[in-house]
Amino acid sequence: MAEAVKKYGIKYAFGVVGVPVIEVGMALQSAGVMYIGMRNEQAASYAAGAVGYLTGVPGLCLCVSGPGVVHSLAGLANAKENGWPMVLIGGASDSYLDGMMSFQESPQVEFARPYVKYAMRIDSLERVPFHLERAIRISMSGRPGPVYLDLPGDLVNKVPDQAKLQFPVPRPPPVAGMADPAEIEKACAALLSAKNPLVIVGKGMQISRAEKEVRDFLEATGYPFLPSPMGKGLVPDSHSQNVIAARSTALEKADVVILLGSRLNWINHFGLPPRFQASVKIIQVDVLPESFGDNVVNAASLLGHGPLVVKQLHQALASKKGFASMTGEEEWWKVLAAKVEKNTDTAQKLAQDASVPMNYYHPITLIQQVLEKEFPDSVM
Amino acid sequence: MAEAVKKYGIKYAFGVVGVPVIEVGMALQSAGVMYIGMRNEQAASYAAGAVGYLTGVPGLCLCVSGPGVVHSLAGLANAKENGWPMVLIGGASDSYLDGMMSFQESPQVEFARPYVKYAMRIDSLERVPFHLERAIRISMSGRPGPVYLDLPGDLVNKVPDQAKLQFPVPRPPPVAGMADPAEIEKACAALLSAKNPLVIVGKGMQISRAEKEVRDFLEATGYPFLPSPMGKGLVPDSHSQNVIAARSTALEKADVVILLGSRLNWINHFGLPPRFQASVKIIQVDVLPESFGDNVVNAASLLGHGPLVVKQLHQALASKKGFASMTGEEEWWKVLAAKVEKNTDTAQKLAQDASVPMNYYHPITLIQQVLEKEFPDSVM
Amino acid sequence: MAEAVKKYGIKYAFGVVGVPVIEVGMALQSAGVMYIGMRNEQAASYAAGAVGYLTGVPGLCLCVSGPGVVHSLAGLANAKENGWPMVLIGGASDSYLDGMMSFQESPQVEFARPYVKYAMRIDSLERVPFHLERAIRISMSGRPGPVYLDLPGDLVNKVPDQAKLQFPVPRPPPVAGMADPAEIEKACAALLSAKNPLVIVGKGMQISRAEKEVRDFLEATGYPFLPSPMGKGLVPDSHSQNVIAARSTALEKADVVILLGSRLNWINHFGLPPRFQASVKIIQVDVLPESFGDNVVNAASLLGHGPLVVKQLHQALASKKGFASMTGEEEWWKVLAAKVEKNTDTAQKLAQDASVPMNYYHPITLIQQVLEKEFPDSVM
Amino acid sequence: MAEAVKKYGIKYAFGVVGVPVIEVGMALQSAGVMYIGMRNEQAASYAAGAVGYLTGVPGLCLCVSGPGVVHSLAGLANAKENGWPMVLIGGASDSYLDGMMSFQESPQVEFARPYVKYAMRIDSLERVPFHLERAIRISMSGRPGPVYLDLPGDLVNKVPDQAKLQFPVPRPPPVAGMADPAEIEKACAALLSAKNPLVIVGKGMQISRAEKEVRDFLEATGYPFLPSPMGKGLVPDSHSQNVIAARSTALEKADVVILLGSRLNWINHFGLPPRFQASVKIIQVDVLPESFGDNVVNAASLLGHGPLVVKQLHQALASKKGFASMTGEEEWWKVLAAKVEKNTDTAQKLAQDASVPMNYYHPITLIQQVLEKEFPDSVM
Repeated sequence: MAEAVKKYGIKYAFGVVGVPVIEVGMALQSAGVMYIGMRNEQAASYAAGAVGYLTGVPGLCLCVSGPGVVHSLAGLANAKENGWPMVLIGGASDSYLDGMMSFQESPQVEFARPYVKYAMRIDSLERVPFHLERAIRISMSGRPGPVYLDLPGDLVNKVPDQAKLQFPVPRPPPVAGMADPAEIEKACAALLSAKNPLVIVGKGMQISRAEKEVRDFLEATGYPFLPSPMGKGLVPDSHSQNVIAARSTALEKADVVILLGSRLNWINHFGLPPRFQASVKIIQVDVLPESFGDNVVNAASLLGHGPLVVKQLHQALASKKGFASMTGEEEWWKVLAAKVEKNTDTAQKLAQDASVPMNYYHPITLIQQVLEKEFPDSVM
Repeated sequence: MAEAVKKYGIKYAFGVVGVPVIEVGMALQSAGVMYIGMRNEQAASYAAGAVGYLTGVPGLCLCVSGPGVVHSLAGLANAKENGWPMVLIGGASDSYLDGMMSFQESPQVEFARPYVKYAMRIDSLERVPFHLERAIRISMSGRPGPVYLDLPGDLVNKVPDQAKLQFPVPRPPPVAGMADPAEIEKACAALLSAKNPLVIVGKGMQISRAEKEVRDFLEATGYPFLPSPMGKGLVPDSHSQNVIAARSTALEKADVVILLGSRLNWINHFGLPPRFQASVKIIQVDVLPESFGDNVVNAASLLGHGPLVVKQLHQALASKKGFASMTGEEEWWKVLAAKVEKNTDTAQKLAQDASVPMNYYHPITLIQQVLEKEFPDSVM
Repeated sequence: MAEAVKKYGIKYAFGVVGVPVIEVGMALQSAGVMYIGMRNEQAASYAAGAVGYLTGVPGLCLCVSGPGVVHSLAGLANAKENGWPMVLIGGASDSYLDGMMSFQESPQVEFARPYVKYAMRIDSLERVPFHLERAIRISMSGRPGPVYLDLPGDLVNKVPDQAKLQFPVPRPPPVAGMADPAEIEKACAALLSAKNPLVIVGKGMQISRAEKEVRDFLEATGYPFLPSPMGKGLVPDSHSQNVIAARSTALEKADVVILLGSRLNWINHFGLPPRFQASVKIIQVDVLPESFGDNVVNAASLLGHGPLVVKQLHQALASKKGFASMTGEEEWWKVLAAKVEKNTDTAQKLAQDASVPMNYYHPITLIQQVLEKEFPDSVM
Repeated sequence: MAEAVKKYGIKYAFGVVGVPVIEVGMALQSAGVMYIGMRNEQAASYAAGAVGYLTGVPGLCLCVSGPGVVHSLAGLANAKENGWPMVLIGGASDSYLDGMMSFQESPQVEFARPYVKYAMRIDSLERVPFHLERAIRISMSGRPGPVYLDLPGDLVNKVPDQAKLQFPVPRPPPVAGMADPAEIEKACAALLSAKNPLVIVGKGMQISRAEKEVRDFLEATGYPFLPSPMGKGLVPDSHSQNVIAARSTALEKADVVILLGSRLNWINHFGLPPRFQASVKIIQVDVLPESFGDNVVNAASLLGHGPLVVKQLHQALASKKGFASMTGEEEWWKVLAAKVEKNTDTAQKLAQDASVPMNYYHPITLIQQVLEKEFPDSVM
């Protein structure tokens, strides 16, 4: 198992060991996977999801049967909501005792089902590599997410039959597609006629590692942008086109909104009035076809892999006669800049206001100053 | 509800009416939806899935609470396995009696969950159009599939508050993407060096309506092809490149296989020896990113909408220096043609052999003769 | 498996055979279990539940994987609602192909879960008897209900290792308890002060085979009774204390209602006004502790096995000073008798009225006449 | 809601408040329910279960939507396994936003389902008392366990329509039954012929508050007993009939074992050789009919409420001619006493052995000394 975990690309594991997965934890360490023991599977499962988000490769969470699995559902649910790759391996009671009320016997695959893209009970020791390859691959494919493997305890201390042991060839990284050119045309048409364009940079660009493509697109177009809470940091907050300080104004007055890996959910006020224009045109870039058209009808639906599609849109738009980069002299930019300035002023005054009861801005500013000093290379 | 069903594109409904959906069935008929009453929800649900497959737009199944919903799970499960769009609307007990053991009170959304892409209980009469638009859209998006809406009986005989009634703008048809050009290049490279190429035409080409693109591709390349059981009929069986009569030979000797909307599941012998070469190169065209790499590692993974991707591959391949259409004179075609001839002979002899106990071929041939006479325009 | 099915008491099996359960069906027949092949698993599963109800021992339904199991959910759901013992054995895909998209591979234990008391996948051929004994026992214990066993196809054609084969000792029939004497006292107190007592005879008395005890109790007390739809036939409809012809009056005017294996669900109008007195005192006899107090607070809650508890109540009541059997001369009986007579007259007139459009009573009467002639021994 | 929580008997609540349940927490405090804020719903849910176990009345856990509910599954699962009464109330997203991707929208009733006896979404503010009464009652009835109520946020800040507000009459405490006298006879017969009887006192006696009845039975019979881990403390560990120090010997040599609210699961070595005699006769007292016969066939199955059944057995046995209390002079007691003495000696030596690395006994002894001094009234 440890060999397979490593072979199929997992680098970090978190967990709480105990019967029947103690030996699995030890083997992971021997195989060179970084295994970090935690105090509670809840935290371990969140960590495994987070490392999946940060590295693009699933983090592994290893837990014991029964409560171990139930505690780990937290990380699974979070990873599913957020589209983070993650593998949970849950130790299970010995299969030859099924139905006898053995130690923590419980239907763990069913427990995991609502929170995963894929759940499977490992049927034999020789097929462990098969199951891991498939689970990891599904976790990373399309919109990433968590997967669950159930490991009966009676497999743990067996020695695999080498003659039957299968190690599937590692798959190349998951592929991703590009948008339909007809939709790209619709997007360009909407943008060419836009007066108040706005880009919302969401988590999907982080997951698909579209830093370069998004920044190139923003800088080539000169469009103002807003990062979503999880999209923060993809482009530095200090970027001159970031209009987060005028968020409400930007949303209320935009006539075309480009959603880059962000959705019209509650965070984005469902894309509806009064927070958005009723007539706003939405251009949505997403990897999940089922997400197009949620809450608002799209002007263009660009399905595909973040970097590919942003580049595809960028190239198409740049090639259009009539396309011109925004300069900052447009009415739209003037409105936004004025609002940014005003709100920044207000915020700065609050930041310096140490009166009690303390406002939010002051302590955050103090923390930020320390962080900038201690971690000068971090981009925030 | 009937108005919304129609507005969002549904044309055919099947079901068994009773409390509390009698009025819904009547309203569907009044609204001009073709409603076909069945004797058992099992059959009605299969019919709704089938009509979704045939028309590309979900068929509707309308059923009563409790056993009505449970019987309809059959059609949901079938539609999910096959990727067919379908909407099941299940009448439910009155919500103001929840917990009182009212008529057929049961957790129907949970019953449907394992078999659907989406399941939701309708929360108010005014939001019926919202729920229908979303359910139908999800059913048709990406890899199509079934969805479930739970309709509490107390909504059926209410009159909606017109002031709150929402009819979302109908969405345009679901969009679909194209393959990553880098993968297209890999596919072309594999094909240019292929001696024994083979195309398997699967159900995915039917669902995505790729008749023209597949046929153009086949005829431009001259590659032999096999239809899968559900891919049959997309290209006529009588097509000269169809080598179904030499299926085993074709699979065993192919060096590059192009899977068009077909998967390496049990029907395709998992893509494994002895039915396939161990060294076979797989080029897979599919709409579901999670399906790439199942059982065999791909030489190229072409994610996207059937017609778009087949055309994309076709154009890329045709533009390659070194590409030449097969003529039938190649060794590969000679092997296949010989096998086809031999197997066809055997089959024809069996077809004419009326001895008892009867073989399979004879009655099927008789039936076929009748069908050809009665339905001369059908393509089989 | 067939040997175990028989050993643990199953006499009747229904199903649709196919891969991978063909041999199981044949073995059942060889072992002397009556196996009845059906056309659709839906009907087979209903039949298995019905035979469980009729015989008190689970009927077996045997089905193939995938759609076979999904079709059989209908019978499971019905058996669960009704408290009928039943075993569904579902063939499953080979476990050594798990995750490879083998023939009808699906998570069948999860499919069955919402509808059963117990669901388990059989882990080895040698433990088949263990799993059957437990499943059958759980099906019959407490409030009976359906259970599910998942049978991987790879077990079907193996030969069990005789050294490891376990056949658990058959268990004695499930035990059942009696009511708390303190609650019996409360019931007696309510009955001693009742003017308008009424007994409702429900399905629970059928399931627990309380024919004799219920009839003895009714005749010793002289109380009027109503059969529930599923309680019909336990005491003949022709019994002089049956006041079904005055059902509405009986319910509306009763001051104490004894629920024998019946519940205050929709059929019994939730036990609420206007169909019941707001002040009605409920004495409930049931085997499921969770059912006491539903919709109405009980005057007495008699938990236990039907025959034991009815006898216990009977003996306690008969021993009370102040208890007297009703004679028919009470005001309560006069009201009921008058209403019965009036309604019976009306019904008889309708029964003889052959005018078109036909009323319900006429054809039912004609059918009843034929049945009485053809099946003179049947008690209806 | 707070009024209903209190009215139906809940005294303690634990939770983590936030949107949308902040006001519920405040109202609970105002209504006089002791509300204890925790840092993590996982701990809060375990606490709610534990307080249910300790007081016999469900502890309440109050949590927010989404992760709040998922974290709380831990306590539900634990309470279900252990038979502890508990109510989880989970805040949910506003129902009028269903399907719009509102804040933490998720199918929480389905999340809870595998871990509860009952799960229900509250349909209206006016029916909150109805839902609470039913949920609490089911939680406490039969074998106790956890229940879940889903509370849509849009109900929280509404004002109920007083005209429609229903407060069901509080139900009396759940009733419980007694054993079938025929089984009591079997139990007596087995005990009258026993040479080496043994009582195992389990958690079920704690849950049903059978302290007095169990102690009376033990002292009247003179039988040796073992507490299960969760049955510890019902009878003081220091009781002279406690043979825990000779546990292995007692299990191995017993010829009749009386299971009082304990099961033959892994803790009790499944009741199987080599830890038990193959010929051991089992007398099982339990409240769950489905538990009889698990792993071993019973000599007698005594279904019912702990105190009632233990008393029933006690009285029946004491009335038998031929019954005599054990005196300690029997061969069985001599074997056990010798073993107890030997093992106690060994343990005491270890308890005083402070050498490093430290054994388990030493620190536990030190802790025990402190506890006895600090909490002299605690019985351990």
